[in-house]
Formats: sequence, C-alpha cells, structure tokens
Amino acid sequence: MTSELFAALYARGDVAAELSDAAWVRAMLDVEAALARGCAAEGLIPEGSATEIEAVCATSRVDLAVLRDGVASSATPVIALVRALRERVGEAARGHVHLGATSQDILDTALMLMSRRAFVPLLDDARACADAAAALARTHRNTAMIGRTLLQQALPTTFGLRAAGWLVGLDGARRDLARARDEDLAVQMGGPVGARAPGVARRVAEDLGLAEPPLPWHAIRLSPAALACALGGLCGVLAKIARDVTLLAQQEVAECREGGPPGRGGSSAMAHKRNPVAAVSVLACAKRTPGLVATALACMEAEHERAAGAWQAEWGTHVELLSLTGSATAWARDLLENLEVDPERMRANLADAAVGETVPQGAGELIERALEAHRSAR
Amino acid sequence: MTSELFAALYARGDVAAELSDAAWVRAMLDVEAALARGCAAEGLIPEGSATEIEAVCATSRVDLAVLRDGVASSATPVIALVRALRERVGEAARGHVHLGATSQDILDTALMLMSRRAFVPLLDDARACADAAAALARTHRNTAMIGRTLLQQALPTTFGLRAAGWLVGLDGARRDLARARDEDLAVQMGGPVGARAPGVARRVAEDLGLAEPPLPWHAIRLSPAALACALGGLCGVLAKIARDVTLLAQQEVAECREGGPPGRGGSSAMAHKRNPVAAVSVLACAKRTPGLVATALACMEAEHERAAGAWQAEWGTHVELLSLTGSATAWARDLLENLEVDPERMRANLADAAVGETVPQGAGELIERALEAHRSAR
Amino acid sequence: MTSELFAALYARGDVAAELSDAAWVRAMLDVEAALARGCAAEGLIPEGSATEIEAVCATSRVDLAVLRDGVASSATPVIALVRALRERVGEAARGHVHLGATSQDILDTALMLMSRRAFVPLLDDARACADAAAALARTHRNTAMIGRTLLQQALPTTFGLRAAGWLVGLDGARRDLARARDEDLAVQMGGPVGARAPGVARRVAEDLGLAEPPLPWHAIRLSPAALACALGGLCGVLAKIARDVTLLAQQEVAECREGGPPGRGGSSAMAHKRNPVAAVSVLACAKRTPGLVATALACMEAEHERAAGAWQAEWGTHVELLSLTGSATAWARDLLENLEVDPERMRANLADAAVGETVPQGAGELIERALEAHRSAR
Amino acid sequence: MTSELFAALYARGDVAAELSDAAWVRAMLDVEAALARGCAAEGLIPEGSATEIEAVCATSRVDLAVLRDGVASSATPVIALVRALRERVGEAARGHVHLGATSQDILDTALMLMSRRAFVPLLDDARACADAAAALARTHRNTAMIGRTLLQQALPTTFGLRAAGWLVGLDGARRDLARARDEDLAVQMGGPVGARAPGVARRVAEDLGLAEPPLPWHAIRLSPAALACALGGLCGVLAKIARDVTLLAQQEVAECREGGPPGRGGSSAMAHKRNPVAAVSVLACAKRTPGLVATALACMEAEHERAAGAWQAEWGTHVELLSLTGSATAWARDLLENLEVDPERMRANLADAAVGETVPQGAGELIERALEAHRSAR
Repeated sequence: MTSELFAALYARGDVAAELSDAAWVRAMLDVEAALARGCAAEGLIPEGSATEIEAVCATSRVDLAVLRDGVASSATPVIALVRALRERVGEAARGHVHLGATSQDILDTALMLMSRRAFVPLLDDARACADAAAALARTHRNTAMIGRTLLQQALPTTFGLRAAGWLVGLDGARRDLARARDEDLAVQMGGPVGARAPGVARRVAEDLGLAEPPLPWHAIRLSPAALACALGGLCGVLAKIARDVTLLAQQEVAECREGGPPGRGGSSAMAHKRNPVAAVSVLACAKRTPGLVATALACMEAEHERAAGAWQAEWGTHVELLSLTGSATAWARDLLENLEVDPERMRANLADAAVGETVPQGAGELIERALEAHRSAR
Repeated sequence: MTSELFAALYARGDVAAELSDAAWVRAMLDVEAALARGCAAEGLIPEGSATEIEAVCATSRVDLAVLRDGVASSATPVIALVRALRERVGEAARGHVHLGATSQDILDTALMLMSRRAFVPLLDDARACADAAAALARTHRNTAMIGRTLLQQALPTTFGLRAAGWLVGLDGARRDLARARDEDLAVQMGGPVGARAPGVARRVAEDLGLAEPPLPWHAIRLSPAALACALGGLCGVLAKIARDVTLLAQQEVAECREGGPPGRGGSSAMAHKRNPVAAVSVLACAKRTPGLVATALACMEAEHERAAGAWQAEWGTHVELLSLTGSATAWARDLLENLEVDPERMRANLADAAVGETVPQGAGELIERALEAHRSAR
Repeated sequence: MTSELFAALYARGDVAAELSDAAWVRAMLDVEAALARGCAAEGLIPEGSATEIEAVCATSRVDLAVLRDGVASSATPVIALVRALRERVGEAARGHVHLGATSQDILDTALMLMSRRAFVPLLDDARACADAAAALARTHRNTAMIGRTLLQQALPTTFGLRAAGWLVGLDGARRDLARARDEDLAVQMGGPVGARAPGVARRVAEDLGLAEPPLPWHAIRLSPAALACALGGLCGVLAKIARDVTLLAQQEVAECREGGPPGRGGSSAMAHKRNPVAAVSVLACAKRTPGLVATALACMEAEHERAAGAWQAEWGTHVELLSLTGSATAWARDLLENLEVDPERMRANLADAAVGETVPQGAGELIERALEAHRSAR
Repeated sequence: MTSELFAALYARGDVAAELSDAAWVRAMLDVEAALARGCAAEGLIPEGSATEIEAVCATSRVDLAVLRDGVASSATPVIALVRALRERVGEAARGHVHLGATSQDILDTALMLMSRRAFVPLLDDARACADAAAALARTHRNTAMIGRTLLQQALPTTFGLRAAGWLVGLDGARRDLARARDEDLAVQMGGPVGARAPGVARRVAEDLGLAEPPLPWHAIRLSPAALACALGGLCGVLAKIARDVTLLAQQEVAECREGGPPGRGGSSAMAHKRNPVAAVSVLACAKRTPGLVATALACMEAEHERAAGAWQAEWGTHVELLSLTGSATAWARDLLENLEVDPERMRANLADAAVGETVPQGAGELIERALEAHRSAR
C-alpha cells in the first residue's frame, strides 16, 4: 500500500519514521511494559513480575509475521503479541502479562503514544514554518504589492501582511495541535468492556506522558476525531500558503519563486522549466486530508462497548493523516525557509495595476500584532 | 434546496430558525450598524451618521429579491444591501455607510453572528442531552447488563456506565463547542485587501459579542474550519448514542426503547411496529456531517487575499452543518430525556450470556468521575 | 436550511425548481397514482378505484404542514400523505390506496421521478456547455497560446485544444449522466420487506418512465450512489473549466475574461474590478459536491431490509447534490457561452515565454477527434 | 505509511501485490517499452532502438532509492527513471528513450496498467462473492425469516431474498467495474502539453490492453474519478453485506455466524468469544473508501495543462482505494463462502415475532430473477 517510491512526496521528514511497523511494535511493547509497571504500583502484581515483563518488552524483537498472522485471525495484532510475551517470561509472571487489559487498550494507547512521538518533529517543523513566515513578514513589512481578490487585482497591500496572515494561520494551527496533544493523546486502559477502575490507567498515563481521560473511550471516539481535525486544520493552512506560492510563482506574476537545492524542479520534457516542487508536494499531501478527517468523524458511530469496523478503520486513517501532515509540514518548512521574493517585480506589478501605490496604514500595525502574538506563542 | 417538508428531520429545534434568510438579512444589517458605530467611536464618521445608519438598519426591511439579484450579478448580496442602505440615509451619511469595508467583512461577520445566535439553543440542547445522560448514569449505576464488543456479548457492565460514556462524550463535545464559540466566532473587518487597522474590528467585536482575531482572516480560514470540526465532533457523539439505542431497541435485545409522544414511530404498512424515530433522525442528520466538515477543510485552500470559489462554498456548507447539528441535538435530547430502560430485560440477557453477572468494581467509580466532571462542566 | 437569498449561487437554473417541496409532493402523488394504476392493471384493485385514486392525486393539494408533522412523528411524510388520500376517496377505494406499498417505495420512487425531471434541464444545460466548448474549440483551433503545467509556462499549444479538453470532459460526464438516468433512476415497489412480486413495479416503471430494477433496492443502494457519482463527475469537469477561466482571467495573464450581462462582477469596495462571477459560482457549487458524494457512498451501509438513518440521510444529500450540480451547470453554460477570448494576448504571452511558437502538429487532429466525438454524442 | 503489520486487514489478497513499489517500477518500465515500440511502429524511431529499449526495460532493475530521490527533487520518479534508462542503452538509442513523452504520460499510463492488473484478482474475488451469494439465495430460497426495517422486526421474508439482494448489488458493482476497466483504464500519451498526435497513444493502448481516450486527459480527470467511484460502489455493497452479518451474528439474533478457519475470531480477554473477523475487516476497509472517492473527485479541479498538487495527490489515493477495495473483496469472499446460516433459529425468531409466517409470494420470483440475471452476468 505504501511506498518507498513516493516517500519523499507523502512521507517526507521525521514524522513518518514514528509511524512505521517497527514503531507500532515498539509502542505496543512500551504499553505492555507500562501496564505491568502500573499493575505493580497498584499492588495487582508483584514488582518482580513487572520488572521481568518490562525487561522482556524492552529487549524483545517480535516477529512481524507472527503479528501479521494475528491480524488475519483476529483483526488485531495484540493477541499474538501477548502470546509471544507470555512465552518469554517465567511461569510466575505469565499470568501478569497484559493483566486486566483488552486488545483495544494496547492498540489505542500505542497509537496515542506513536502520535505523541510523531508530534515532536511535527511541531518542530510547524514552528519552523511559523518562524520562517514571521521572518518574511518582518523583512517585507514595507514591500508593497498588489492585493488580489477572486484572482483579480484589487488594491495595494504588502507582502509582509500576506506572510503575517500565513503566520497567524500557522500559529493557530500549532495552538490547536498542542491542545490536541495535551488533551486528546490519552491513555486507554479500560479492560474488556471499559469498566476497569481508573488507578492503572492513571499510572500508565503518567508513565507514558499521555493524558488521563475521565473514562475509557473505547466507543466514545471524540479524542481521535479531534486529533484528526487538528491535523486537518494545519494542512488547510499549509495548502493556503502553497497555493499562494504557486500563483505568485507563475511567470506572468513572478513575485516569488521557490528556492531549495539546485536541480530541484526540473522537467522531463522541458529543460527550461523550474517547477514549484515544494508547493506542489504540500498541496498533494494536503488535498488528501479532508477525506481522511471525514473518515475519522464517520468512525465515531461506534456500537456498544467496541465498534465492529469503525474502530479498525481508524488505524490506517490516522497513520495516513499523520504521515501526510508531517510531510506537508516538512515540505512547507523547506518552501518557506527558501522562498525567494522579488520586491522589484511586486512594485512593477503594482504600478501596472494602476490603482495607486498607497498601502493602507493598518498593514504595518497588523504585521506587528501577528509578530507579537508569534513571540508569545513560541 | 431546503424544505419545509423535511424540516422536522433535518432542521428540528431552534437552531435552524437562526439560519433563515431573514436571519441572514438581520445579521448583515446588524453588522452594518455595528460597523457604523465602530467608525464613529474611532472618529472616522460623525456620531450623527452612525445614529442614522443604525436606525435605518434597525427598521429597514430589505427586499429579499433585491439581494438575491445582487447575488446573481456579483456572487454576494452585500453590494445590493449597501446600495439599499445608502438610498435610505440622508446625503450626509451616504458615504458613511459600509465605510472602509468589503463585502466579505459583512458576510463573514454576519455568518459568525448568526452562528453565535444559533449556538444558544444548540448548547442548551447539548447541555440537556448531557443532563439526561447524567440522570441515566445515576439511575442505572447498578443496572447490570451484558457488555458487547464487535456486536458480540462479552462481559458484564452496567447501563449506568454506558450512559456515563455518552455523558463524557457529550461534555467533551460541549467543551469543544464552547471553545469554538469563544475563539473562532470572530469578527471580520479587514477592508478590501485585509489591511485595515484593527481599531474598528475591535469595536465591532465588542459590540456584537464576537472574538477579535489577531488579523483579518479573509483567506486564512482556520476559524470556520475549526467551527465545522467542533460541530462534526458533537454529531459523532450523538451518532454513537443513537446507534446504541437502535441496537438496544431491537426486539431481540429489547433493553431500551424510545419514549416520546404517543403515536410516534408508526409504520405505513405495519401497524404493530414502533420505529425508533428519534434515533433514526439523529443518525440521518449526523451521517450528513462528515462530508460537510471535509468540505469546510478543503475550502481552506484560499487564493491570495480572497478565494475564488472556496469562500463562496462555505456559506451553504456552514448553514447546513449548523442546521443538521442543531436538529441532531434536538432529536437526541428528545431521545435521551424519554428513553425507556428495561433493567429486567438487561438482567435476563446477562443471565443468558452465561458469563457471570459480576460487574467490574471500577464501573461505579468511573460513573462517579463522569458525574463529577459533568457537575463542574455545567 | 437553504435560501432564496443564495439561490442565484447554489440553485440557479431550472433544476432546483424540480426539487422543491411542491415537487416532492407532486412526485409522491404521481407515484401513488401510478401505483393504483399498476395495481389495477395487475388485477389487484378495480379499475374504478384506480381512476378515483388517480383523480384525487391529480387534483389534491396536500397541506405541507400535515406532511411535515408526519415527518416529525414517523421520519417519513408518506404515512400522513396516505392518510390524507384515504380521507379523500370513497369508502370502496379507501383500502386500495397505497396497496401493498411501504413508505420507502413511495419516497424512493418519488426521488427518482424528481431526479428524472431534474435531469431534463440538467442535461440540456450540460449539452449547451458542450456545444459552447465545441464552438470555442472550432473557433480557436489555430489560436496559439502557451501551455502551462504546474502553473508554469511550458510549451506552445492552442486554445482550441484546451477547449477540446473541456469538451471531452463534458461529453464524458454527459454520457455517464445519461447512463445513470437510464439505469439508476429506477422504480422502487417492494412492499414492506422488499418481497413484493415484480408485476406492479414493472407497471409503475413503464408508467413513470423509470428503469425497472431486478429487485427492490430498499437496502441495496448502488443506484443512488451511482447517481451521486455521475453528478460528482460532472461537477469535477465544470470545476476544471472554471478554474482555468479564473487563471486565464488574471490581469497578469488576461487571455480570457468573462462576458455576461453588463454590471456583473462589480465590487462593493473597488469600482474598477470585474470579478469572474460565473467561474466563482461554478467553483462554489462544485467544491461542495465531493463531500456529498462521500455521504451517498457511506449511506450504502444499510441494515437488513431498511436502514436506520443511512436511508433518511439520502434525501437531503441527493437534493443538495442535484441542485448544486444544476446550478454549477447553468453557471458554466453562461460562462462558456459568453467567454471572451483574446488571441492577441495569447500570442503576446506565448512570445514572452520564449519557447518558440510552433504548436505540435497533433493539436489540430485532436481537436477534430473531440469535435467528431461530440457530433456523434449529441 | 502502510504496513506489513496490518496487511491482513487493509491489503489482503492479490490486489495489493499489484500495487507495490515493484509493481510501480515494472509498470513504468512496461510503459516506456510500449512507448518505444509505438514510436517505432509510427516510424518515429528505428526498430533497432525500440528493440534495445524494450530489452533494457525488460531486464533492468532500477534502484528504488534513485527513483525516490527523483521524487524528492521533481515530485515525479520519471525523470530519474528516464535518466537511468538512457544510461543503459547505446548512444544511438539514447535520444529515442521516452521520445515525445512527458512524466505524466508515464505515470498515468503506469497507474492505469497497474489498475488493470489489479482488476484481475479484484474481479475474480468479486465474482466469487456473487457466486457465493447466489448459492445462498438458491439454498435458502424457502428459508423463512423475519424481515427487519429500521432494526425493528417487520414482516416475514426469506434469507434467500436477502442473499438475492446482496447478489444484485454485487453484480451491479461488477458491471460498473467492468465498464470502468473497459472505458476508464485508458492510456495517456499526450506529450508535454497534451498536444501529441494520437498515433502513438493508439499503439501503446493496443499494446498494453488499455482503452484509447479521445484526447490526452492530463488535466481532464474524469476517468480516474470514475474508476474511484466504481471502487467505492463495490465497497458500499460489501459494507451492506458485512453490516448484515454483524447484526445477524449477534447472539440475541444468532441467525448467521461466520465460518472460516478454526481459531479465527478469538479474543485477548474473553476466551468464550467468537468475533466476526471477516465482517469487521470488510467494514474497516469499506469505511475508509468514501473519503478517498471524495478526494479523487476534488482532484478533478486541475489547472491548465497539468495540475499543481491535485494530480500528485491521486497516486496515493488510488493505490489506497484499490488496495482497500481488494482487501474488502477478499474478506467478503471468505465471509460469504463460509457463512453459516441457521434456518432453525430464523424460524424460531420469526415465530417469536408473532406477525405470521407467510412469506410474500413474490420472494421466490424475485430470487429467480436475481439468479437469472447473475447467470447472464457471469
């Protein structure tokens, strides 16, 4: 399904690495270890068992083929994983592996843990995008250009204000993502029907750095949906920026062009062309995300204590959404950090528009607001 | 496009009333009035002009046909609206109508104002849903039932815990909506290219009870998208509840049934049937919303200072989404407030399942957590 | 939910008129009449009853409020409609009204009948679009312009070939729509659980000019989904055309501009502007349709003999989708029939691109193919 | 992005194998070879060059890393592929590699070729699904059961009629897929701006067994969208079937249960459970598809001669959609071929419903129609 081939397009940057099969297995093992520690801390199993399970989880390499076959026979890899772990611990600890847990506890928590890990490079890149937009806003605060509405020349503005708009969008999306990270990346530890007392969940949440939800959320999928929405929001902002760059980079406009390494953007048939590869890549990723968010929302219609189908549809959806968002962000960072702006051409186009060249007084003040907000957002 | 015929299904309750054509016109007039007051407060126009414009806005009935024709010739009703207002004020105030504003300022702010008005009944109904779920959780905290995962009988739980899960979902969605209301229902007052100084926007925001954004957001559509996501999240929770009710109301399960007025749920061909009309209506509305959220996200790809198409697609999308969410919430309130629960049947089904009848000790504690969180959320 | 106010945007042209509440009522009455005639033809009821029922259906005005209340109590207007009809026929015919039918039979068939009626102006406008594209292809078969890939100038082509591409897309979408009309606009007459013998269905299908399906499709929703897909396909083609026009109409490019009535496209704040109102309207409609198609596809997951929620979600979805597609098509017709092309500017831009001016020899041949295919498609 | 780990869920069966990176490379090489043969046949290059290029394409193993880096620098792997091929042929043939083609020609045609290859197992599995449904319809033509509407018991029907409904849906989706295969899996060979004379395209189409389109469709994306729609339609039918099975397999209903290999469907926490793994897997795949179809439709809005972003978003979308549809179909085949039906329990549930046990006379006739249609469809 996926592809090394298109990795540079759909899975650029460090986010995708946190979403690999190996990352899934690592996260599931980390959750089983944290569960054992939590059970010991709550006095449900001996410390010795927890230590032994933890050691096995830390060092074990679980054969992917075994887990894959587990998915084929039970639509989850967890049963096979637990069986493998039990085989590797001593008899005394055997019954203490996965104690009181259900497959969904492990998978949901593992996905949240992976997401938390993926959020580190994602938010790094998003911050770098915002910083780059801020730099553009600062540098071009007085760079007059023609504003365009409905793709028609309208009245003067500045490129700094355009970049300040990008900045405000990026900072807003970052705020929403940080909130999703803190509230929605939550532990799941509810046991077979979600009725497990919350003590173990609290321990595991602290241990793994995840939020502690009020209740198990096996069938109340607001958090994964909110996570999806925050990712979709960032992609929307990035799409706006990339769309602007493709338009400004038209030769007929020529107010911006992509920088980036030499040789990027060549064409197989037209040697003279320089294609806006970064902007195209951002758009390619971002266009794929609204449909994924819709899927995440539709999957909220979960039956009883665990959904038949809607839950299992989430895994691929979220991994895809995270990966695409990560890639779009990495490409946008590249785009923004290397964007070449041509103030001369902006001035010339503005003069051609013949609508005067006086930029509204508010532009500078607005730029300052955006920059000030960005400074406090960092 | 819409329909009185299906209003009880897709537009039940008080939310839809805030989204009518009359509500649009009222909101646009309110925005023009607030703009005039704001301009006066900023010293841009005389107080007398503001007073006159305000009076005209308050009392004018603008012919819908005129606005509709305006849409046909300019894809916005605002030009025609402004022309009508200018005709009705004295010559001195004529130039002070709509001062410094652009059509999008009026439409965006009007949509946000309408949304704010629609949020009142929406959040009322959502709170009533949560209260009803809380009451079910309290009443049935010890009502044992068989938990079901993947639609198969699993282990014992309580109906109280099921209802507590609904409650937590509802309170989470309410929190997200309240946040969207406070942060994303923002004023728009940026002028033709979004470069207007923020003084007037601040005045209008205070005046109309809307948030003041850092910058005009003509082409940075994170706020409308976030609003859409919050609505989609509530619908997802409601769909989960309604799905559960349709499943519990199957005669073979018979653990719940819809209450509601006598005669509801009859069938044209089968007199003995009692259809779960409220749950069906919730689901019918909720299933229409993920696609609308996807549209709102896709519309974030806006060109330059104002989008050609993406912005104009938002109006119908948001009105539809708000209306459907309002209707789903009103139906869910009806459903939850009138739900008939059959503890005897739950006990019998649990006994049939032959998995013991001991509910996990955690269930009660979890219910208390949910109820406690609900009390502090109100 | 909808709006007179935005009718010129979202519901332009004659399609929307076929989707009004009055059209729904008329269609339901026509179906009840056809059902009575079909029952008589099959010998299930006396001819006299059929004649009487038909007369009542033809002349009755059913109070919308009564039907709306019916929706509130049963999630369908049909029970109330049938009650009203029974009150209006003589006692002998009373039991012959709605004989053997279920609410879904009437609603599904009525929606298909309305769709069939809406397809007349829809396909008229689509054909006019194609004719206009063909005329542009013919007129500009030798009008050289610079081809643009990834929004960058590439190599020479002709505007005729661009228009020929539009034409092929339009003719393809028309073929798909005609096929959907002939295959998917099917009668529904399965009775309460879809087990009714096909004789009556065949009669009603012939009577109303609808397709006769192999089986009742109460819970097998491939036909409505296919209908939605065909509409979505046309919108995609129209969006492509409108996107091109917005790009070609940029002042910096200036190779096309919208015609249309004088005064169209003015701006509230910038008197010098001429906005591409038709293209913007096409895009605004078309951007709303992919999400609606997704909803139609998701609604195929129908339970047992009749879906709880998924079916009821279709009505609004299909009406919206038809209306938006109709409006996009009407706007596109306006756009294409009035498009102003500037061959001089195309030539100048091509010269500026400095990639030579020799158009590939294939261009003319391809245009001829498209025109030839169009002639045989008409 | 994807995953061996979840391959049994999202990528079961033989379809996914046709969509791997290796399959992409193979398809691109096959297209370059066919292009060379086509150019020779049209007299554009010497036969010897074609033979040499063909041999290189047949035997070359292109380093994936090189192609991946090509994507990073140009958003397409084709430039790097062509460079590699040119290095491997003699100097005389060097200029004859990729003659007159553009990257999109190769990628579009390769995707269509891969799709054509994937359609073989896909349609095999879909036919097996239909055959299995036909067998169920035949076997159970007289197996009475209670029909259920809105999840409520309604009136008697037969399980044979239920299965006949599945059959008609499957055969309808197969017809649509076969049509998409024959019409929409089309060659692309338009050259840099889509103006290449059609001779070479015709040759390549015949060579590779693809349809010959009237015009290059670089920016007219009706065919890929129609392909997506046909896949989405099949998934919708499969979701309906799987949803039915999950409902019929509830212990409280117990009219069907999944067969399949022993041990499938176990639970990590509840040894007594038997989960409907196949139905859950079908639903998990199918729920992910409407959002993907929406993306494919949204990507039709392509700029000028080649889209910036919308085209590049298609690759992952289509691969994902094909893979998920293939997996859903393979799982559904397993489900249908091994379904265990319990006529006794159906009879008992029908008796409990107390609505009589007389199945409508039409049921048998309808089943025969479905079976007859299936026979002629094979």
